[in-house]
Amino acid sequence: MARGRFITIEGGEGAGKSTQVRRLADVLRDAGHSVVATREPGGSDGADRIRDLLVRGPADRWDPETELLLHFAARRDHLVRTVWPALERGEWVISDRFADSTMAYQGYGHELGRVAVEQIYASVVGQFGPDLTLILDLPVDEGLRRAASRRDGEDRYERMDIAFHRRLRDGFLDIAKREPGRCVVVDAMGSEDEVAARLDAAVRDRLLKA
Amino acid sequence: MARGRFITIEGGEGAGKSTQVRRLADVLRDAGHSVVATREPGGSDGADRIRDLLVRGPADRWDPETELLLHFAARRDHLVRTVWPALERGEWVISDRFADSTMAYQGYGHELGRVAVEQIYASVVGQFGPDLTLILDLPVDEGLRRAASRRDGEDRYERMDIAFHRRLRDGFLDIAKREPGRCVVVDAMGSEDEVAARLDAAVRDRLLKA
Repeated sequence: MARGRFITIEGGEGAGKSTQVRRLADVLRDAGHSVVATREPGGSDGADRIRDLLVRGPADRWDPETELLLHFAARRDHLVRTVWPALERGEWVISDRFADSTMAYQGYGHELGRVAVEQIYASVVGQFGPDLTLILDLPVDEGLRRAASRRDGEDRYERMDIAFHRRLRDGFLDIAKREPGRCVVVDAMGSEDEVAARLDAAVRDRLLKA
Repeated sequence: MARGRFITIEGGEGAGKSTQVRRLADVLRDAGHSVVATREPGGSDGADRIRDLLVRGPADRWDPETELLLHFAARRDHLVRTVWPALERGEWVISDRFADSTMAYQGYGHELGRVAVEQIYASVVGQFGPDLTLILDLPVDEGLRRAASRRDGEDRYERMDIAFHRRLRDGFLDIAKREPGRCVVVDAMGSEDEVAARLDAAVRDRLLKA
């Protein structure tokens, strides 16, 4: 059986990632694939426990280095327990966030730099990576406005200052520019249907037409 | 003001580390030092939350790489919030476990190897390390017998198999052999008073006579 594909959906707060993951999962199921829709931090029992430590509480709860380690601990558990077994079974995996979020948030946003994140990625994840990464791009103000309308208590990152969120957006765009073969930047302005149509087109263009 | 000293007490399960940390703290206070007695994993609010994930639950709850990251996440928080500020204030810090435990448990016990642990140590902790490490050494059977008499629910590591605990003891002894300037192996057989006297002598010999 062929190994499944791994698609990640990335972007800042309020970009509509979780909604679009669900919609893309439906599109791929309609195309005949078995699909696992998952998210980071989290996506496995252990990683969900680590998620609680990361997304709740005061913005300065962790120093950036500690946070980087917690994200990769959660990621390792997610890969070992959920993502890799599903891909081995031939299923397609769509993840709401993956390592580009750590690069954007900790590497660019918290200014740990690219090298610190690349090193831990190499040692924890190795050569593995997404087949396709869709980056939902939105002006910072619009993203924070949308995110503020959610009331789920998972607002630790939203409470970072505006300069952090600007570095974050620039970080995602820089990641896309460095890896154009893997990444597609998708405009996240407009209706849910409009954004879904753009993601659908990108997936067809990159993965389904081959 | 002079920077304080950092002393770590290491060893396998049931070696009597926490009791001896308390006794050594009293000895050093009597010698006129301000002393912070702490422990790993834990020793700060965030690290204590991570500790709960590490010391409870089934033995196979985490794969060794995930566990390594969680230990260093807890360690980073402990250093940043507790250890480094205390040393800066001129206080002495005694920690029940530190990075040698990660080397022994994950590097030797789980056989991740020395290099994996050394690399993450260098990136997370840097050049910093203990001024003195006291390794409480005990035959494996005796340590597990003593540990089994505790009933605190923190028994995840005790439930690893006996071969794991043998690698662990050999690991601690190998660490001591590689760094004789920092490490002293102390026989943990005998009464609490006898072991305390041995630790006391080692600390006087290495740190107090200068």
